[in-house]
Amino acid sequence: MAAAGLSWVRIGEFAWSRLEPKEGAYDFDWLDRAIETLGNAGLKVILGTPTATPPRWMLDKYPDMIALDDHGHPRGFGSRRHYCFSHAEYLEECRRITMKLVKRYGSNAHIAAWQTDNEYGCHDTVLSFSGAARSGFRDWLAQRYQSTDALNRAWGNVFWSMEYDTFDQIGLPNLTVTEPNPAHALDFRRFSSDQVVRFNRAQTDILREHSDAPLIHNYMGRVTEFDHFDVGQDLDIASWDSYPLGFLEDRMEDGDPHKCAYAQQGDPDFQAFHHDLYRAVGGGRWWIMEQQPGPVNWAPVNPAPLPGMCRLWAWEAFAHGAETVCYFRWRQAPIAQEQMHAGLLRPDSAAAPALAEATQVAEEIQGMPEVATAQSHVALIFDYTSDWAWTVQPQGRGFSYFRLVFEIYRGLRKLGLDVDILPATAADLSDYKLVFAPGLFALSADLKTALSRSNAIAVIGPRSNSKTKDFAIPTPLPPDLPGLDATVSYVETFRADMARPVEGGGHVLHWFETLETTAPTTFKMTDDRPLLVGDAGIRYLAGWPDETALARMLDELCLTCDLQTTDLPEGVRIRRTESHKFVFNYAAEPREFDGVELAPADVRWTRL
Amino acid sequence: MAAAGLSWVRIGEFAWSRLEPKEGAYDFDWLDRAIETLGNAGLKVILGTPTATPPRWMLDKYPDMIALDDHGHPRGFGSRRHYCFSHAEYLEECRRITMKLVKRYGSNAHIAAWQTDNEYGCHDTVLSFSGAARSGFRDWLAQRYQSTDALNRAWGNVFWSMEYDTFDQIGLPNLTVTEPNPAHALDFRRFSSDQVVRFNRAQTDILREHSDAPLIHNYMGRVTEFDHFDVGQDLDIASWDSYPLGFLEDRMEDGDPHKCAYAQQGDPDFQAFHHDLYRAVGGGRWWIMEQQPGPVNWAPVNPAPLPGMCRLWAWEAFAHGAETVCYFRWRQAPIAQEQMHAGLLRPDSAAAPALAEATQVAEEIQGMPEVATAQSHVALIFDYTSDWAWTVQPQGRGFSYFRLVFEIYRGLRKLGLDVDILPATAADLSDYKLVFAPGLFALSADLKTALSRSNAIAVIGPRSNSKTKDFAIPTPLPPDLPGLDATVSYVETFRADMARPVEGGGHVLHWFETLETTAPTTFKMTDDRPLLVGDAGIRYLAGWPDETALARMLDELCLTCDLQTTDLPEGVRIRRTESHKFVFNYAAEPREFDGVELAPADVRWTRL
Amino acid sequence: MAAAGLSWVRIGEFAWSRLEPKEGAYDFDWLDRAIETLGNAGLKVILGTPTATPPRWMLDKYPDMIALDDHGHPRGFGSRRHYCFSHAEYLEECRRITMKLVKRYGSNAHIAAWQTDNEYGCHDTVLSFSGAARSGFRDWLAQRYQSTDALNRAWGNVFWSMEYDTFDQIGLPNLTVTEPNPAHALDFRRFSSDQVVRFNRAQTDILREHSDAPLIHNYMGRVTEFDHFDVGQDLDIASWDSYPLGFLEDRMEDGDPHKCAYAQQGDPDFQAFHHDLYRAVGGGRWWIMEQQPGPVNWAPVNPAPLPGMCRLWAWEAFAHGAETVCYFRWRQAPIAQEQMHAGLLRPDSAAAPALAEATQVAEEIQGMPEVATAQSHVALIFDYTSDWAWTVQPQGRGFSYFRLVFEIYRGLRKLGLDVDILPATAADLSDYKLVFAPGLFALSADLKTALSRSNAIAVIGPRSNSKTKDFAIPTPLPPDLPGLDATVSYVETFRADMARPVEGGGHVLHWFETLETTAPTTFKMTDDRPLLVGDAGIRYLAGWPDETALARMLDELCLTCDLQTTDLPEGVRIRRTESHKFVFNYAAEPREFDGVELAPADVRWTRL
Repeated sequence: MAAAGLSWVRIGEFAWSRLEPKEGAYDFDWLDRAIETLGNAGLKVILGTPTATPPRWMLDKYPDMIALDDHGHPRGFGSRRHYCFSHAEYLEECRRITMKLVKRYGSNAHIAAWQTDNEYGCHDTVLSFSGAARSGFRDWLAQRYQSTDALNRAWGNVFWSMEYDTFDQIGLPNLTVTEPNPAHALDFRRFSSDQVVRFNRAQTDILREHSDAPLIHNYMGRVTEFDHFDVGQDLDIASWDSYPLGFLEDRMEDGDPHKCAYAQQGDPDFQAFHHDLYRAVGGGRWWIMEQQPGPVNWAPVNPAPLPGMCRLWAWEAFAHGAETVCYFRWRQAPIAQEQMHAGLLRPDSAAAPALAEATQVAEEIQGMPEVATAQSHVALIFDYTSDWAWTVQPQGRGFSYFRLVFEIYRGLRKLGLDVDILPATAADLSDYKLVFAPGLFALSADLKTALSRSNAIAVIGPRSNSKTKDFAIPTPLPPDLPGLDATVSYVETFRADMARPVEGGGHVLHWFETLETTAPTTFKMTDDRPLLVGDAGIRYLAGWPDETALARMLDELCLTCDLQTTDLPEGVRIRRTESHKFVFNYAAEPREFDGVELAPADVRWTRL
Repeated sequence: MAAAGLSWVRIGEFAWSRLEPKEGAYDFDWLDRAIETLGNAGLKVILGTPTATPPRWMLDKYPDMIALDDHGHPRGFGSRRHYCFSHAEYLEECRRITMKLVKRYGSNAHIAAWQTDNEYGCHDTVLSFSGAARSGFRDWLAQRYQSTDALNRAWGNVFWSMEYDTFDQIGLPNLTVTEPNPAHALDFRRFSSDQVVRFNRAQTDILREHSDAPLIHNYMGRVTEFDHFDVGQDLDIASWDSYPLGFLEDRMEDGDPHKCAYAQQGDPDFQAFHHDLYRAVGGGRWWIMEQQPGPVNWAPVNPAPLPGMCRLWAWEAFAHGAETVCYFRWRQAPIAQEQMHAGLLRPDSAAAPALAEATQVAEEIQGMPEVATAQSHVALIFDYTSDWAWTVQPQGRGFSYFRLVFEIYRGLRKLGLDVDILPATAADLSDYKLVFAPGLFALSADLKTALSRSNAIAVIGPRSNSKTKDFAIPTPLPPDLPGLDATVSYVETFRADMARPVEGGGHVLHWFETLETTAPTTFKMTDDRPLLVGDAGIRYLAGWPDETALARMLDELCLTCDLQTTDLPEGVRIRRTESHKFVFNYAAEPREFDGVELAPADVRWTRL
Repeated sequence: MAAAGLSWVRIGEFAWSRLEPKEGAYDFDWLDRAIETLGNAGLKVILGTPTATPPRWMLDKYPDMIALDDHGHPRGFGSRRHYCFSHAEYLEECRRITMKLVKRYGSNAHIAAWQTDNEYGCHDTVLSFSGAARSGFRDWLAQRYQSTDALNRAWGNVFWSMEYDTFDQIGLPNLTVTEPNPAHALDFRRFSSDQVVRFNRAQTDILREHSDAPLIHNYMGRVTEFDHFDVGQDLDIASWDSYPLGFLEDRMEDGDPHKCAYAQQGDPDFQAFHHDLYRAVGGGRWWIMEQQPGPVNWAPVNPAPLPGMCRLWAWEAFAHGAETVCYFRWRQAPIAQEQMHAGLLRPDSAAAPALAEATQVAEEIQGMPEVATAQSHVALIFDYTSDWAWTVQPQGRGFSYFRLVFEIYRGLRKLGLDVDILPATAADLSDYKLVFAPGLFALSADLKTALSRSNAIAVIGPRSNSKTKDFAIPTPLPPDLPGLDATVSYVETFRADMARPVEGGGHVLHWFETLETTAPTTFKMTDDRPLLVGDAGIRYLAGWPDETALARMLDELCLTCDLQTTDLPEGVRIRRTESHKFVFNYAAEPREFDGVELAPADVRWTRL
């Protein structure tokens, strides 16, 4: 590892059965030796708490600690993440093992960071329909609403006689005859997210008390079931596990031609989006904890990266401000579930192809002065609550909040723009020229204030501010934006094959709102209905634009804001730091840009 | 409402938790006031029994009152219809609340009709696999068969050693290793339908005793799991909830081009089919209880109707003999599950687009003398038992009884013909020139007699009379029709991409029977096998004709019967009453018909 | 039957409820009469044990005797195969009824063979997730591993802290949060197969003791969940139930054009593959126990065979060495689940079309001297364990072991070659010129020895020998073949629409391995990576060839081995016995071959 130029190594994150083979009988010798060996080689160690894999004896002790799926089926022992976030006794056990670890290693000089658990939410593990979750949810509701009268009013339970007399009558929103009350479903998601925060905080409280090393969690790609901003409050650094090829095949709605074109490179924007998102979650500090080094084992198909892509991915991360890029894993494990997951070494310890690329990156990064993140001119709001809300109530096949935000991100990046992602609680937008808040469930008072104080053009909508926090339609009707006379009088969703034409080019997909407005119309439909209205700071967008319509709008908005855009060839992306401009070629073919021929997987940088 | 020209208003159908907030503690004040207010405004009130939404305390009392799905998962509280039709104590509670309501309001002058429950069968709620259903099924079987010996013989249980010694050994036909005995499955469906009849009758018996107002239930579109003719026996008026756009997207097999062409108008025949069906179910008296007034919330996508369609739909209903068309709902509810379901008013009480159309219809209907239903010349038999039987035993992907009947209906309507839909128990066919009985499980003796006494040409088949009532193949082999020498010697189903060519044009889809016959052949396959045989009153159709083949047959049959047909442009439909001929344009483009240019959604009528 | 030339008749296989209507109350009179009647007519009787359909009273006695599916749902009474192979008391009941039957009929002159149970594994019944299975699995593991330490090491349970302290902690590999350890899953499949062997042997032990008639089981098509070679060890003859049309539609991955082209004939190679497979399973002795005689009831669609196909299918079986071809069924049953399953007679006892074909075959076979199976020059290894392994760990959508082997079989048969299928335990390959072992999980020492002693060219791979028996990646890395320097350094799977081009024509699909090798390369990819390497006896194939690439390889390999191939028109197949060459036309159109015009469904034979 040291010879390859690596400086960090993460260990221990699934090792509970070796740390505590029997309840109360600990064995730290092997870990002592491992840390010593690694540290002596000059490596900094990230020590993971092993709470994602409770050992088998734990389930003998607490048979009800497992989660139930939404059909009520148990999700038991035999892989990982077999616990319910709401189980009080298991939480206590996690506190105990964390305490043991940090007391032993909290002041060990080689331990340079801590990782809590592993990939919260992976394998759909945030939502649990267990007895522990049900009783936790009732307590959470009782604290939030204080009385069932208040809850009944907030949820509108008079509809369909769904009123409750006591909190103990309230169930989880699964197994209902038809869909549950969306207010019920959304509160369950809020609760479930809070349980993740609570679970994580139980560990960070202990770790902070006994160690000065920074605290990290490794998030996943497109896991939105818990609020990462909330979890991030208790950590020092956000990190995430970046698997560009697996994500393309497994977690993106794009069609086959796109997936074929990028099968060995990954989507050109998906990783960048998460880099920007987790930079915000980490308050500016973020890492890659796991970078894909070759074929993995878990996607529907598992091709190899094109030569050079491991280097490209690493540099894209650094260009977005990553402090560290770690690879997963060092040596391909010949056993168990991930035996087909490539490492930097093969199972026989020979070098796998990515090792040379990792080594090259390590050398190159030595020659690069610190890559300071530049202030972007464009902000895009990403809000986990909105994702929960529209998952609960899509109102039309094809409406995905994540996707809506991502497509605007992609549109901006295709114009060569750098983007900051902000939470919906953002209270200061003064640094931006252009702000987007698509699909934002409800605008907070803070955000309204920030918008009105900012000089930026803010593009709000579609579907933004369309609900009260209790998931009801407010009066006056949405969007109810300061300084903009516009009312959504009618909402339509439509078939994917019925895109509606926009005057001048492009279409609206999935979602369209008929507006009553006296505001000037910048873009309209071919039937004259307004699509983008407003001419002052706040604009409202009344539909989901396709790629062409979006590009036209962004062009015009950038022109208005005096933001310079760049004409990029298909598959080429750029990113600026304070000091450098980076160019990446995600295409499988050579591309020419700025008079330079870029090979597939090429990365170039120039001083600004 | 009154200002808009509405005359009826339905209330109370989900209000149990407000009528009886705690067990035995009733609160009718709010309902008294509502009825008084509405009545004083000149509106006639339809009062719904609230039994589709038992309040939460009811489930504390009877935890086993809920239905189980076919996997054995409970279908619990949190939405609506969370009860099992077989649960005896819940049925008793329904009697009690119905008695309370009718005693209080039975002689209230404003209460002009009663609705029992709401949309029986919606959300797949007829079939329940609960303990209550199992024990009810055993009783039902014991009464039907008297002995397990008789049942074993009837079902053919000797096959695969499925014989029973006691009725208590008989389970529900779910969770079997491979498919259950079709006779078992069909009897379970007969039983389940009877439970709906029993449930409804428990209320009508009480309502009739204390009120003279007519009794109504609001049926749904394409819900076939219970026999509506049987339920209709206990009611005075049939009504149904007509959601043309939701149904097109959610409940029709037609392909994307058709769904695109009619996305904002609804299928041109689906509503008309149900109008004719429920007219028969209501013994001539029928209503629309809920007419879609804008986008709804429950279909895969939810577009808005084209301007004018709400008016068109109302007139199509009146032209089919509807006494009343009500809209659902008056004001869009800003809360809970249906908050995205449009009303005549918006959530902020401003007028939604459909209000003007409803007002226009109300004005127009004032100027129309009573629209008396004309006697049709064509009859089409629709039989719920047949739908159950072929759902249990499709024998080939793509065989749907509902669809088979509907396609013949559509073919007739495309020729400008008016159709009466009749139950399989029809005993008098003397008014008809042409009668269709496709896919009829078993011909009753009554129907055979009616057919032989009628002067009509009857087209029987495919698959008609192919089983005994016990779901066995009879000997002599089907179709065994009086006066027709034809025997089905061989049944084939085939892939959708293997349509078989009919001599002269068109194809047979899904299903084809090889006939041994000496009867004259009117239509045959290109390989000479007969398709339509017989030249006297009874014809037999040996396959499922596609649109072209069907049109050719109908043309020739109409010619033979001296029935005049009309050449209609795509999307245009006509309907005659005793006094008027109505023309409807369902196309999204203008159409010319009879020398008149019809705008999209146009409705015209002329005196006959 | 006798008049039609049939000589065998199978009875009794589902008759337990008639043999023992109440526990301990037997009724053999009807069976005595049936055997007497059939035997007196000159028919030889195969008597089936009725254990596939335990009567209803058995479930009262042992409610826990049923299997549970992988969601934990019970698979109960009401069809067939409603038992768990691991249930000890039910196994005892099966011994008892078998003993009763064989004691009564073991020396009956008319009983000429015994069939155990019926279609083991049909309806996915090998894997059961019941309590009986779990406790049986724990015992099986304890015997296999002796200690949990050994098991933990073998499975690699240190990964994700999956270590066990006692065998009682080990569950079945269902309902885990993400996929279970593949070693765990594979052992469960080994155990489940062993349970079938045990179940079958319980009957054969008793039958052998009291009867000299041969013992048979009727296997199904493409049921791979138990090791047929293992079960076959305890039987005298292998038989199988051949449903060419049902299998084509239900169990093959081929696309719509292929399924349309052969909808009424069945796939030209699927039956032949099973003939050769079950000939090996039966140690040379095999039958067709059920031959499809017309449309069946269980496939997604159920067309009729083309005229002549029933004869063709019978002759294809005889040409592959079948001793007997029986049809299922004699008379179409008018009742219960299979009422739409055609027989040789219609339900009214008139002749169905296949009866004439069966009669013709019976006459023709009289004129044919015994059809002795010829020794093939080509061997193809089929290994049930490999099928389990790659079902557990496909690593890419589209990777099916059965399919991989079948495609090589099809490629060979399209060249007019006869193929022997061998188990992975084959210890003598001296009779072959060409041997294929694609996807073979692990090469046994015996097979390695046989390969090195043979003069055949052996084509190993892709994915062969890639795991230890404990489902780990071995070191040295695969394929680790004697005399071949080749190492798989990298494994990729890829999208179906991303086929990789082979130099000279054709593509690689689904799976490709990057080799480090000094061996000569016979076929390579267009990017120069080797695809088929080696020039001596052992070759390694590094990817899944498509039809074109496979044909090119087989051509070249046959040339090298001096194996003569035949140019066959689409849909035509040939097969040689010791004395004859048979030609079959599976096409729906006439074909010319060897100067002879073959009608659809034509069969011709010539003396060699």
